[in-house]
Amino acid sequence: MQKIVVMGEILAEIMADTIGAGFTEPVALTGPFPSGAPAIFAAQAARTGQPAAIVSAVGDDDFGRVNLDRLRRDGVDCSAVRVDPDRPTGSAFVRYRADGGRDFVFNIRHSACGTISDTPAVQAVLDAADHLHVMGSSLSSPDFIARNIAAAEAVKSRGGTVSFDPNLRKEVLDAPGLKDAMAHVLGLTDLFLPSGAELTLLTRTDDPAAAPDELLDRGIRAIVHKRGADGARYHDRTSTIDVPAFPATEIDPTGAGDCFGAAFVALWLRGTDTRSALTLAAAAGACAVQHRGPMEGIKDLDALRAFATSHGADIR
Amino acid sequence: MQKIVVMGEILAEIMADTIGAGFTEPVALTGPFPSGAPAIFAAQAARTGQPAAIVSAVGDDDFGRVNLDRLRRDGVDCSAVRVDPDRPTGSAFVRYRADGGRDFVFNIRHSACGTISDTPAVQAVLDAADHLHVMGSSLSSPDFIARNIAAAEAVKSRGGTVSFDPNLRKEVLDAPGLKDAMAHVLGLTDLFLPSGAELTLLTRTDDPAAAPDELLDRGIRAIVHKRGADGARYHDRTSTIDVPAFPATEIDPTGAGDCFGAAFVALWLRGTDTRSALTLAAAAGACAVQHRGPMEGIKDLDALRAFATSHGADIR
Repeated sequence: MQKIVVMGEILAEIMADTIGAGFTEPVALTGPFPSGAPAIFAAQAARTGQPAAIVSAVGDDDFGRVNLDRLRRDGVDCSAVRVDPDRPTGSAFVRYRADGGRDFVFNIRHSACGTISDTPAVQAVLDAADHLHVMGSSLSSPDFIARNIAAAEAVKSRGGTVSFDPNLRKEVLDAPGLKDAMAHVLGLTDLFLPSGAELTLLTRTDDPAAAPDELLDRGIRAIVHKRGADGARYHDRTSTIDVPAFPATEIDPTGAGDCFGAAFVALWLRGTDTRSALTLAAAAGACAVQHRGPMEGIKDLDALRAFATSHGADIR
Repeated sequence: MQKIVVMGEILAEIMADTIGAGFTEPVALTGPFPSGAPAIFAAQAARTGQPAAIVSAVGDDDFGRVNLDRLRRDGVDCSAVRVDPDRPTGSAFVRYRADGGRDFVFNIRHSACGTISDTPAVQAVLDAADHLHVMGSSLSSPDFIARNIAAAEAVKSRGGTVSFDPNLRKEVLDAPGLKDAMAHVLGLTDLFLPSGAELTLLTRTDDPAAAPDELLDRGIRAIVHKRGADGARYHDRTSTIDVPAFPATEIDPTGAGDCFGAAFVALWLRGTDTRSALTLAAAAGACAVQHRGPMEGIKDLDALRAFATSHGADIR
């Protein structure tokens, strides 16, 4: 079994109970939920049955413990998660607006997970990686960019593979060097997992219909375009495959794209039939949105199969 | 009117809705409440009618805006509050335990308010200070210790006064150099405002009855020992004055000691009769505990007088 490694933020997420704009007065909240796109990805990959590790750090506080407890319970290798004695665990406050948009208050760059240390544990996990998944949300500093690129190059140099989810939030788009970093990562990517308009974010063309061919011409082996409730579309040199989204009561979409991506990457690595992998990934996304909290809807592979077949899907 | 300056943390406070131990699973919360002991102090001092400024920083986020909006509305001079473009506003999660104790998750030292910059605005506010109030909670780094001591010495050198509230939380007791710093600040203190067991924290004697004389012998002009629901006791060279606490339904004691101290300092600076000042300070404390959120119960001087007299107090 190929081992997946992801490097980036572990966060405590605090969710507003009411829809509205921002956090400029006291509102009802619920948290801490374990969170952070790379953490969600690692947990869903592990629950899909793939060895998965995360390189990150948490603070020596309850928010760190709630995250480590959850990741370990989900089977994620946390040997490269440092407990920082000084900095707090990262956090994200999120409030949904009436238009479906989200307002955030982040504490990430200056939190524990804003710094990766060169420890033997980190090196051991990176050395054991067969596959690196790069989260765009984790390319939030020059150091994280350099570390993700170095790890991607190391994995590739020994015959491993790289997947990349741009996973952009408006709050991080202006980070220095981010767009160049994304282009660099894209050049190392085997499997590209954009959502919605991210499909053309890094292409010369603005045309979604033309973007897949351009990306394939640039050396990417496969593209999975995540389109939320509109399903997903897979492209490689020989095929285009559409799968619909499962019907789902959307309680909280945060993390659904990460769960979709993790399930797909895990199944892709072990050679599962592409349509079945897409369908099970769609099941992971549908399960994720039906629970409040980004990691509360994560299911193991048997449960994803059961969900998909109970909705009439044909899984090979 | 003498101007009060305080230097230290501005925080967004997030309160658990339920009593229990810590934050290791998602719980109901309410926030952000404007908070931070120096901020609470400055707001109550301003509302008591004294010119008051705070030297601090907030992030360029909703938690910073909720604090600045409140402080400005309360009349606090915020000209020396920097808006940090990079670091988030400090935060404190607090949950009450069944025994009345509190569990915290802090983000302070690495937040915006963990760094004071030497700006012209900061210097102008410090130069205009007639009185410096030092919060023990703000002596959380060597830099904050040095800045508070330098500011205290500058105020004293031009004939101003210094008050000091040890305001210790168990979480900060181990900070490097803290006890030495406290002793240094005590040596510059005119008005000492310990709560409960803090009375003997910095004395050679362990005996609460002997501590006031020792403190007065060391050059402190007056001591106000805050004893929560047991009232307050004032000591100087010529008098000891006891005032009872007002009856109050305690909803949230956070900030009550800061409100008591701020009202007393403001009235002490303008020469209000000591017993009346203590009584109005007790009114500020009682009003504070009856509201959820550390700054939600802050009242102006007329409201404190009305509260005190409605409870039978005789204010001169």
